[in-house]
Amino acid sequence: MVKTATIPAYTLENGTILRNVRLAYQTWGVLSKTADNVVVVGHSLTSTPDVSDWWGGILGPGRALDTTRYFVVCANVVGSPYGSLSPLSIDPDTGRPYGPDLPQVTVRDIVGLQKLLLDQFGVRQVAFAIGGSLGGMQVLEWAYYGGFVRGIVPIGVGGRHSPWCIAFSEAQRQAIFADAAWHEGRYDAAHPPVAGLAAARMIAMISYRSFPSFAHRFGRAHVNGMSEAPYQVESYLRHHGQKLVDRFDANCYVYLTRLMDTHDVAQGRGAYEAVLREIAQEALVVGIRSDVLYTLAEQEELARLMPNARLAVMDDDHGHDTFLIEQEALGDLVKRWRKEVIDPQLMVVQA
Amino acid sequence: MVKTATIPAYTLENGTILRNVRLAYQTWGVLSKTADNVVVVGHSLTSTPDVSDWWGGILGPGRALDTTRYFVVCANVVGSPYGSLSPLSIDPDTGRPYGPDLPQVTVRDIVGLQKLLLDQFGVRQVAFAIGGSLGGMQVLEWAYYGGFVRGIVPIGVGGRHSPWCIAFSEAQRQAIFADAAWHEGRYDAAHPPVAGLAAARMIAMISYRSFPSFAHRFGRAHVNGMSEAPYQVESYLRHHGQKLVDRFDANCYVYLTRLMDTHDVAQGRGAYEAVLREIAQEALVVGIRSDVLYTLAEQEELARLMPNARLAVMDDDHGHDTFLIEQEALGDLVKRWRKEVIDPQLMVVQA
Repeated sequence: MVKTATIPAYTLENGTILRNVRLAYQTWGVLSKTADNVVVVGHSLTSTPDVSDWWGGILGPGRALDTTRYFVVCANVVGSPYGSLSPLSIDPDTGRPYGPDLPQVTVRDIVGLQKLLLDQFGVRQVAFAIGGSLGGMQVLEWAYYGGFVRGIVPIGVGGRHSPWCIAFSEAQRQAIFADAAWHEGRYDAAHPPVAGLAAARMIAMISYRSFPSFAHRFGRAHVNGMSEAPYQVESYLRHHGQKLVDRFDANCYVYLTRLMDTHDVAQGRGAYEAVLREIAQEALVVGIRSDVLYTLAEQEELARLMPNARLAVMDDDHGHDTFLIEQEALGDLVKRWRKEVIDPQLMVVQA
Repeated sequence: MVKTATIPAYTLENGTILRNVRLAYQTWGVLSKTADNVVVVGHSLTSTPDVSDWWGGILGPGRALDTTRYFVVCANVVGSPYGSLSPLSIDPDTGRPYGPDLPQVTVRDIVGLQKLLLDQFGVRQVAFAIGGSLGGMQVLEWAYYGGFVRGIVPIGVGGRHSPWCIAFSEAQRQAIFADAAWHEGRYDAAHPPVAGLAAARMIAMISYRSFPSFAHRFGRAHVNGMSEAPYQVESYLRHHGQKLVDRFDANCYVYLTRLMDTHDVAQGRGAYEAVLREIAQEALVVGIRSDVLYTLAEQEELARLMPNARLAVMDDDHGHDTFLIEQEALGDLVKRWRKEVIDPQLMVVQA
């Protein structure tokens, strides 16, 4: 069940003060008396805070995110349409939705807000933070809370958003901007830029998969085997474009891709490599060999620079989305690491 | 200088008869008396038939495409806005441009049309056909003219357009379709869907480059070093989007990407691998290790299956566009192969 909390005031990295910041979140399990059995899950670009919906294979009793031992928390990031403050929220100053005028937050800001949420819960220490993609960016920012966070599991992510990934973000935004219904984000809620958002999602879907995954799944087959019909892969992309349009908002999409582009652990902290070397936590870095977006070289870099990190490589052909598709394999990796590195430090195990 | 020829009638693969097909082309060098010193160059998606413009480093006296010895021909493909029959041409039946109604040709069709052009020249034999990307698709279709073509140099291409590449094509088309000015291709020439076409080009530009090339060139720098300004990579993409809009047409773009999607040497010829094994020509297959679009596995496959092929791998970081960027290295590869394999068979060397 989605719950909400309000952060009374938060000063963003850029100095802007956000007031009454609504955060939607879900939790599983029970916070222990010592308040240190917390697992923070970061969700990705279009995911909801309902981890059971998209990571059901690793969440639950006896699983990597073991709800009998851990208190698992996932907060919806600011900018996402799933309950937290977003472009869809009403701006108290105007009485209308923020739309394109919501102040832009950074990955660091959303983690700072989540920290205040954990403070409201009375959390003393996070056992580990875990997430892929945008979720992985949050995990790396959690590392800079030092002893408050014991372990981190960044998946399919680098220490900063690469110009390659920024380019994919920008092409997607431009597809949205090309839709005449966009109107600089001031579109009528009844006439949103659905074609542009669908095209953006199609670009994204390609980048989340891989050459071999499409080859195995679709080949050059046409829909219904009719040569006049679209290729199956075209139909697949259109279907995914339409599906996103039904559950997402274009301003939120633009906002969140810009948020991801801000990701840079070194911002304001020093030289990039030195800043990564400061991450003292036990870390399991998960890379995906077929990831064309956050290439394996990025996770190799993280694991090389972070002093207490080990690298696990998933060899599946699915591309970036492997962390959402191969949940059994991912769960095994995380559980093994957790049992060796995190569980022994857990003071009180909740019944 | 661009010249034009007209093919009186041509029956497309799908049975449609095209009449008075205008082909724009350029040539360099002189056709020998034995009419067998011909090099056919296939151009890529948005290139012109002016090879000196985009492959000037490998065209000319003493170069891989040695204009003192060879008669080099490049014909603009049907559908392209650079002089051949295209959506911009006037439909004699209506007196207005074809727009989206030009019958769709295939890669095989455009090579068949080029064959008739060579027949008009009196060409007896092609020494070799060379090209990258869409040009490489044409090269592979030339192979099925048997003894008429002595050698082939396909670059950055596979034997059929993969679903991965079709997906990139489709995402680009959808960005164009998202532009309200598109009007199903029946747009006013004064108000074309420029935003959609620019977004399509941005998607394409990403796919033509690579993660490391963007990382080295742009890093996370902002324009003018101002953190409020766009990232340099965003500005670069927008610039390329705008540049294409100034020189290309949206209907042509949609048409040519669909044309590329038809590429499949096995279509109507038999089983894919067996069909590639039929290619008896001497072949130099050039692959690019950093190519994310036509991955090296595709060129490895071509070289493995084609009985007289050798594989050359370019290790540069530029991605697919390496064949347009590293012209000196490419020229060396081609020249070495040509001198060993093609030149000795050349009967008459033109002064």
